[in-house]
Amino acid sequence: MWASMDRERVFDYVDQHYQDHLKKLQEFVRQPSISAENRGIRECAELVRKYLKYLGCKDARLVETSGHPVVYGFYDAAADKTIIVYLMYDTQPIDDPGWSVPPLEGRIVDVEPFGKCLVARGAINTKGELRAFLNACESIRAVGEEIPVNLMFVAEGEEELGSRHLPEFINEYSSELKKAHAVFFPLAEQNQKGKVEMELGVKGIVYFELELDGKSWGHGPTQFDIHGSNKAWVDSPSWRMVQALSTMTTKDGNRVLIDGFYENVAPPSSEDMNLLSKMEKTFDEDSTKDLMKIEKFINDVHGKEAMLKYLYSPTLNIDGIWSGYIGPGTKTVLPYKITAKVDVRLVPNMTVEEVIPKIRSHLDKHGFKEVKIVELEEGYGWAKTSIEDPTAQAVLKAYREFGHEPEIWPHIAGSAPFCMFNRDPLNLPFVIGGLGHGGRAHAPNEYLVVEEGGPTGGLRTLEKSYVAILDNLSKM
Amino acid sequence: MWASMDRERVFDYVDQHYQDHLKKLQEFVRQPSISAENRGIRECAELVRKYLKYLGCKDARLVETSGHPVVYGFYDAAADKTIIVYLMYDTQPIDDPGWSVPPLEGRIVDVEPFGKCLVARGAINTKGELRAFLNACESIRAVGEEIPVNLMFVAEGEEELGSRHLPEFINEYSSELKKAHAVFFPLAEQNQKGKVEMELGVKGIVYFELELDGKSWGHGPTQFDIHGSNKAWVDSPSWRMVQALSTMTTKDGNRVLIDGFYENVAPPSSEDMNLLSKMEKTFDEDSTKDLMKIEKFINDVHGKEAMLKYLYSPTLNIDGIWSGYIGPGTKTVLPYKITAKVDVRLVPNMTVEEVIPKIRSHLDKHGFKEVKIVELEEGYGWAKTSIEDPTAQAVLKAYREFGHEPEIWPHIAGSAPFCMFNRDPLNLPFVIGGLGHGGRAHAPNEYLVVEEGGPTGGLRTLEKSYVAILDNLSKM
Repeated sequence: MWASMDRERVFDYVDQHYQDHLKKLQEFVRQPSISAENRGIRECAELVRKYLKYLGCKDARLVETSGHPVVYGFYDAAADKTIIVYLMYDTQPIDDPGWSVPPLEGRIVDVEPFGKCLVARGAINTKGELRAFLNACESIRAVGEEIPVNLMFVAEGEEELGSRHLPEFINEYSSELKKAHAVFFPLAEQNQKGKVEMELGVKGIVYFELELDGKSWGHGPTQFDIHGSNKAWVDSPSWRMVQALSTMTTKDGNRVLIDGFYENVAPPSSEDMNLLSKMEKTFDEDSTKDLMKIEKFINDVHGKEAMLKYLYSPTLNIDGIWSGYIGPGTKTVLPYKITAKVDVRLVPNMTVEEVIPKIRSHLDKHGFKEVKIVELEEGYGWAKTSIEDPTAQAVLKAYREFGHEPEIWPHIAGSAPFCMFNRDPLNLPFVIGGLGHGGRAHAPNEYLVVEEGGPTGGLRTLEKSYVAILDNLSKM
Repeated sequence: MWASMDRERVFDYVDQHYQDHLKKLQEFVRQPSISAENRGIRECAELVRKYLKYLGCKDARLVETSGHPVVYGFYDAAADKTIIVYLMYDTQPIDDPGWSVPPLEGRIVDVEPFGKCLVARGAINTKGELRAFLNACESIRAVGEEIPVNLMFVAEGEEELGSRHLPEFINEYSSELKKAHAVFFPLAEQNQKGKVEMELGVKGIVYFELELDGKSWGHGPTQFDIHGSNKAWVDSPSWRMVQALSTMTTKDGNRVLIDGFYENVAPPSSEDMNLLSKMEKTFDEDSTKDLMKIEKFINDVHGKEAMLKYLYSPTLNIDGIWSGYIGPGTKTVLPYKITAKVDVRLVPNMTVEEVIPKIRSHLDKHGFKEVKIVELEEGYGWAKTSIEDPTAQAVLKAYREFGHEPEIWPHIAGSAPFCMFNRDPLNLPFVIGGLGHGGRAHAPNEYLVVEEGGPTGGLRTLEKSYVAILDNLSKM
């Protein structure tokens, strides 16, 4: 057994090396790693591998998959406990209009009311935290301490693509991974007012395209957009797709009308309902809305009712749709093709496997056999860890040590491939944690607060919280 | 009075100068003139003005409007008859995927079964014909003849934008324009098998965008696309627009369900029905379908039934639609905005003024008050000239002189701003004519046949037909 860690010396080191540590975040976000475009992915994977070697992983390697590589590293601290550190090194694209700084420069910008923030793609989702976690680990070693748990790093490059090839890695390495006691995902869990939101699970997701073109339909133009005046005697794939989509929801777009869509939705568990009763008291509705720039929730619900919707509603979302001429001014064409990107979020106890067949049946039943479903990824299920689990308790203890009583969410509406860790095949507890704040994931001007003194922790607090979590995990 | 023209000498000149004349077409299509993007417009207008001066117009000028300038030129032949030559110097954009040659290089490409073609944006719609008409006029003068009619050239740069500012010019110049006896629009009216299609009118058009964003709606994200998982508790402008659009047509997308949409549609006139009975015998359904690459018409109608649909159906067409993420792979967003470009084609006796109010009423009646209608252009009405009109007879005579008995269409489904010439305010006969062939207007690989010997006339035939038409017009 190792002696208990001298946290204060590590914290001093973190404080004194703030500028250096910040530079490492900037370096990391400057390396593009846009998985959807395969831009900078391999270079970024190599950079992560270099980081792991530098930390002291004797074994740090790129593990090839059918897609982007997983970076695997094992840090042997000769400790009793072994923790899988789940990381992602890929990001969303940067094509969104509205960036006020170049998205890959790692600029430090004053953002009200937070103070200085790193504004860049990946700042909060999640290259900022990845590098901050490594800074924390390096700081422990730099003061002559040992990291109190063994670390199995699993950094994937396809999270934003639905982690479609991560199962290949997990299956190949399952005998190693099963030696671990828990999985930890370092994030920054404070909201914009500083409140800690502890999230114990995620929804699952299935992502696909609905596509219709005149060729496969046998109606309408088959090879290219034709002159729009021909609508008088030629069918329109665009109108037909509008009609097909419209059968899938109520008029307000909020209730899904696909047969059986809701049949496997489980009611909240009693543990969930207990957590919800507590959450209700601290849920900051205004901040939540302000972050998204929305005026009201669906049906203008509030408080617990809103949270119930958020947590327990499966969704059918249009991520994108396009057809024909989308440039400035007027161009009269009858488009030969229309595509909609759609995702379905899965709540307990829905399964990945049920989604596509139900959508196919719906389209067929309504006479839209010609609308094609193109699966873009395999999808993955929901995942949850109990608050009673020792891993969750270790993270909770760390928050309390920093003076925070977190708002505990039984899960969130977002998706991540955690089910392959905490359900099939590894069956390990999976916990997210970290004290810090960022926002605008998947949106322009994504940011991570780096300066202390505002309503939320900055980079130093984030790194210290990781130190405390590792310390607590070693004692669970 | 001038002596009758010695056509043969002019025709010889056209034959001998084919290469030079073709080069002039290439020069002209190389000058970009994309009105929707304001690309090369003024340069192209100046080029047209230079052409008119070179031909011998003492007066050739750019007439400013609130949009792109009109090029006006008067060629004084001291003749009895004065003809307005309506021209357009603008083109569609070139962003369509599928071009096999650069769209602005003016390449000459072998296209089966036509032989050599000019493949370029504007080749057939309608820079090729504009320049060919000027070549014809220059050829008459080059052999020492005089052009047999006075020519008022009106070349506009916003036809592809719905000729939205042409009325400004027409009103300003109406006292001049009213001195003319007729309006002629030089085109190439052979189909791909060589059959001449004489078109005596056009439909009108109203073009607008339907737009919905969370800000004006008061529901959904208001400023940027947010993370897609929020669909669980946030409204989606995209789903809402799908629902709004779906109320506008039947399930097959072909019958418009807007109240009163069809109420002003006039049945075909007896002259039209006579023409249709003749057309029916020569209508080449297979070629028409092949040109558009369609397998069948709406409801798989054929022959006269298809022609009736084409000619007498007003349409509500989706020219384009877009929202959210439209790049490769997966990105999960809840888009804050969706836009659809829509056009309505007007048949007799529909009016421009009735369209927007009916669509607004429909949206309001179905509870979609939040969907905005953004008018992109003022639109214009339908236009028709009788086959009995002497101008139409002059063109018909020219076709017969070349051995063609044309298929006479009472109008086409396409739109052009002819109503301001042949209805309000000028009330002049308006006739289109020319022997030649091209295709893929508004599509990739737009072409004009330039070589003789294939199933259609080439550039030499096109120019000679214009010579014959001018000659006949002088004698009407």
